[in-house]
Amino acid sequence: MAEGEFEIIARYFSRSSADRDVLVGIGDDAAVVQASGALAVAVDTLVEDVHFPLGLPAEAVGYRVLAVNLSDMAAMAAQPRWCTLALTLPEPDDSWLQGFADGLFGLADRHSVSLIGGDLTRGPLTVSLQIFGTLNPAAMLTRGGGHVGDDIYVTGTLGDSAAGLMLIKEGAGNKGPEHAALQERFLWPEARVIAGRALGPIASAGIDISDGLLADLGHLCHASGCGASVDVERLPLSAELLSVCPPTIAEAYALSGGDDYELCFTAAPSQAQTVEAVLAGVGCPARRIGRLVGGSGVECRRDGEVFDPVSSGYQHFR
Amino acid sequence: MAEGEFEIIARYFSRSSADRDVLVGIGDDAAVVQASGALAVAVDTLVEDVHFPLGLPAEAVGYRVLAVNLSDMAAMAAQPRWCTLALTLPEPDDSWLQGFADGLFGLADRHSVSLIGGDLTRGPLTVSLQIFGTLNPAAMLTRGGGHVGDDIYVTGTLGDSAAGLMLIKEGAGNKGPEHAALQERFLWPEARVIAGRALGPIASAGIDISDGLLADLGHLCHASGCGASVDVERLPLSAELLSVCPPTIAEAYALSGGDDYELCFTAAPSQAQTVEAVLAGVGCPARRIGRLVGGSGVECRRDGEVFDPVSSGYQHFR
Repeated sequence: MAEGEFEIIARYFSRSSADRDVLVGIGDDAAVVQASGALAVAVDTLVEDVHFPLGLPAEAVGYRVLAVNLSDMAAMAAQPRWCTLALTLPEPDDSWLQGFADGLFGLADRHSVSLIGGDLTRGPLTVSLQIFGTLNPAAMLTRGGGHVGDDIYVTGTLGDSAAGLMLIKEGAGNKGPEHAALQERFLWPEARVIAGRALGPIASAGIDISDGLLADLGHLCHASGCGASVDVERLPLSAELLSVCPPTIAEAYALSGGDDYELCFTAAPSQAQTVEAVLAGVGCPARRIGRLVGGSGVECRRDGEVFDPVSSGYQHFR
Repeated sequence: MAEGEFEIIARYFSRSSADRDVLVGIGDDAAVVQASGALAVAVDTLVEDVHFPLGLPAEAVGYRVLAVNLSDMAAMAAQPRWCTLALTLPEPDDSWLQGFADGLFGLADRHSVSLIGGDLTRGPLTVSLQIFGTLNPAAMLTRGGGHVGDDIYVTGTLGDSAAGLMLIKEGAGNKGPEHAALQERFLWPEARVIAGRALGPIASAGIDISDGLLADLGHLCHASGCGASVDVERLPLSAELLSVCPPTIAEAYALSGGDDYELCFTAAPSQAQTVEAVLAGVGCPARRIGRLVGGSGVECRRDGEVFDPVSSGYQHFR
């Protein structure tokens, strides 16, 4: 006989929290936290075969659902504190649950995030995690704070994750360290939480890159009431990405591939040295890739000439 | 061409909130609220064909996912304030989305709850709502505060919703006002938010009845480290329920039928008059149905004799 809902929660998900601000944790009708000040709240859902390929290891699923939410906290310059989990499962499977919990808690522990509640239901595999973070409203990042003339930056390198996902879907097997590194980028995304916190007081606007640079920078532009001009020669491309595809394909991945979970942010040109110093201080690489301009939408330039990139990002319902 | 995710959110779900504590609402990487003090957080997921029958009107689905979460707030004596929505849909359907939003916002407006964020994804219909409420930790209700000797109460009447669901599944059609009333009880559950707030300072423990009285009172007993004795003659049964089934079946619905969303709470016998006065003051009927006892588990008595009821409640994974 299958285990009941409550046994599963007790076995895999109930852990005591060392966080003294958790007044009531898992096991009551609601969790209760002691919140003082502004609280950032985000929720992201992963659906099998939509947001991750069928058969993705459970540990990677548990890791991923927290990582993508941590990335939302990073994009607001919030300090992640607590999360809740709404897990819908076709049937209870011990090894899947153990792997999922290992992936989730492994990452949660690294960020001192406590799982304080949730709901476990039966149905098609759907994983929804909600995260709560504290922030200083005077130093939060929003999409809408950019001004014409601000520099546009991205952290890390772009396009690796989308290329890695393609390699996973192709089942290419072991084709060397570059292939492996790209697949790792998809499987274990690193949210830029510390960089986001550091940028809060400096950057004018920010967003995380989940749907592709063009799409997400487009959201930032829309919210800031301006346009953007991106110099594609300045896109940060990894050696691994350039080793598996021609530069134009790598560029397309960087512009339109999703799942990078890097930050795209803007700052006044007068802040350039501060941005560089602060990010160097937290060990986060970043590159200026363009500038906010008048008008609307994102234009791409190569050698100073505007051109039309192939795709304009990824939307779940297109 | 189907609408994109962002157009759907803008059309159906983005509404400006009059709540000045909402610093950032729908449309950024996270919502930001000004929280001061303790915050209760709950999440409940509804899966089609598991938590509600296939083909349930969209308005009832939108209403329901908020109602069940409001009931969790009621069970903690929390004042609901904000919610987020993780909606997974097979395909965008205008009339379904409009109905869902109408049901959700209609109830949200009655409780002055603002939708502050969410996630819209493609996949099998799964609706997960997370709710946030403020509370006073000194007057919150938990499952674990009961003591041996406390009286056990329930609000309203029990079993109607489970009977109503059976009638809906049978597609019995219009068989008179009693049938219709029972179906309404399933379709439009009323969370006992005001009663929960009123009981916070008085009751020793509380839980909402979502999985059936025996199951949920069992959780309260487990958390309080005691047992319970229920006099089944005292179960509050509606005239409508008694009109459609024999008393023993009505009793079984009341003991084990889910989806009542009434409150089960305990209070010291010395508080009996206060409980009565406070609930009368907010217009909420309640009845004492038994007492917390030593040991563990829930025993049922008829004419003072212990007997074994048929079912012990509903678990999603059994």
